[in-house]
Amino acid sequence: MLRVPNHQVAGHRAGDGKLGPLVDDSGLFYKPLQSDDRGSKEVFFYTSFSSNTNIPNHIRRFFPTFHGTQLIEASDGSGKQPHLVLQDIFSGHLNPSIVDIKIGSRTWNPQASEDYIQKCFMKDTERSSLALGFRIDGLQIYESEGSGFWKPDRKLIHKYTAEDVRLVLRRFVSSNSSAGVDPDCTFASIVYGGSGGILAQLLELKEWFEHQTIFHFYSCSVLMVCEKESVMKKMSSGAEVKLVDFAHVVEGKGIIDHNFLGGLCSLIKFISEILTCSDVHTAKASLQDPRKNYIYTNCDTDK
Amino acid sequence: MLRVPNHQVAGHRAGDGKLGPLVDDSGLFYKPLQSDDRGSKEVFFYTSFSSNTNIPNHIRRFFPTFHGTQLIEASDGSGKQPHLVLQDIFSGHLNPSIVDIKIGSRTWNPQASEDYIQKCFMKDTERSSLALGFRIDGLQIYESEGSGFWKPDRKLIHKYTAEDVRLVLRRFVSSNSSAGVDPDCTFASIVYGGSGGILAQLLELKEWFEHQTIFHFYSCSVLMVCEKESVMKKMSSGAEVKLVDFAHVVEGKGIIDHNFLGGLCSLIKFISEILTCSDVHTAKASLQDPRKNYIYTNCDTDK
Repeated sequence: MLRVPNHQVAGHRAGDGKLGPLVDDSGLFYKPLQSDDRGSKEVFFYTSFSSNTNIPNHIRRFFPTFHGTQLIEASDGSGKQPHLVLQDIFSGHLNPSIVDIKIGSRTWNPQASEDYIQKCFMKDTERSSLALGFRIDGLQIYESEGSGFWKPDRKLIHKYTAEDVRLVLRRFVSSNSSAGVDPDCTFASIVYGGSGGILAQLLELKEWFEHQTIFHFYSCSVLMVCEKESVMKKMSSGAEVKLVDFAHVVEGKGIIDHNFLGGLCSLIKFISEILTCSDVHTAKASLQDPRKNYIYTNCDTDK
Repeated sequence: MLRVPNHQVAGHRAGDGKLGPLVDDSGLFYKPLQSDDRGSKEVFFYTSFSSNTNIPNHIRRFFPTFHGTQLIEASDGSGKQPHLVLQDIFSGHLNPSIVDIKIGSRTWNPQASEDYIQKCFMKDTERSSLALGFRIDGLQIYESEGSGFWKPDRKLIHKYTAEDVRLVLRRFVSSNSSAGVDPDCTFASIVYGGSGGILAQLLELKEWFEHQTIFHFYSCSVLMVCEKESVMKKMSSGAEVKLVDFAHVVEGKGIIDHNFLGGLCSLIKFISEILTCSDVHTAKASLQDPRKNYIYTNCDTDK
């Protein structure tokens, strides 16, 4: 039984007769092949990545598992169409908070057509890619059972400045994540920090990108996922980093992906700052009141 | 007594009534202020960098010492003109081999004028900046007392591909650095390797660039310097890394310089590869003939 995914924050959405990805109950994600060469490029990437023995296993886990392609009934009613069959990243999650971050100050590869480069160049400049080396492309942040998810409109996301990005990355790890409130970064040390946290995972990716010259990942996204409810119940935070969207991946030809690496390092810096900042407050809070486990102030007030 | 520098591989050159930098015998380098806002920007950079207490000393050594500005007789006979007074990086050197590498896939900052961006964009695409994250902007490599320096024409340098860049970086550390010969990378382990070598220095810079959000260094160069004759006489290799040209530096505003960092990591990868490659050969050579100190084969022949 195929259905529209519950948790999708960017890209084309299925439903209302539109073409988009579908999921099933066995944990698979079916992504329709885009009709231009992007579809075939993504298949080529997954095929080549899966069979490449130079990809270490600790890096492979950051990519959705690939299960080939399959003809299935498309979500727009256009009949059977080819789909990529991938691991459904969110199948084990109840209320995942998700941020989709497109990495790189450039989303186009130098071999693309002039028109395409021009289009991307404009978008990269208007949005935060050029300035930050990455941009937020979609997000949903779980607030509570009552209010559900905070999922801002795409048009708002497209206008994000450096400060907005900082705020979103703080809200992602806060217990008071409703608008107008200063995010408390309560979960920062659990979700971003620690040996299994998001920062550690990003640093592992970074190390690989410092050496790998196999692929250049243009217009590819890092998904950051966590489960706030699990954190509150002292269960695993489910903090996970996944790379998705490989329709613009090209061969590295012996050169590292300096565009992706630079952007990734910039994201790492943003997250390190939130972590350092909330560590200071954890220390302060425990000095003031040893029973306090959470951080109630935010870092900016000290600056 | 001011004179035209002996060792200059890029930028405007003095002499023949042209405006360019001058040096004196006390180890100072006088750089004329460029008449548009580039001159004032470079003064601003040096002033602000010198007085910034957040720059660690181990990073400060990668920058030429700044001695203020001074009105001196310009090299083009236009009378007294303002000059930056800087440390003459090559004053202690006899026959320095030098490679000037402009770092970053972009040499323009996003706030520059549209015309300027367009001009730089074209140049970055034509030359290797976009592909490699850096480009060689000038070089001189010492060959021998008889043949002096290999100093290819700028027009040739402008056409360098990834393979040409690799070759230059190998010739820079080779004892047989004349054209048509496969570079032997004899000095790689001494000049690039070791705790005081160029790779270690670049890695130190990289670590700083992963955190620093004070400046963005557009169109800035890394100079790599060494003295082959000293290496042969078992003296210090004089292996040095210096950053120069700050006319396009802008404030970082809390964001890391992902453009510079990405390009720097790409250069580091090129140099690591030469080093790994020549290590293999040193090991091989010593296995075959324990008396051999030098590497006579080159890495490519094994691929």
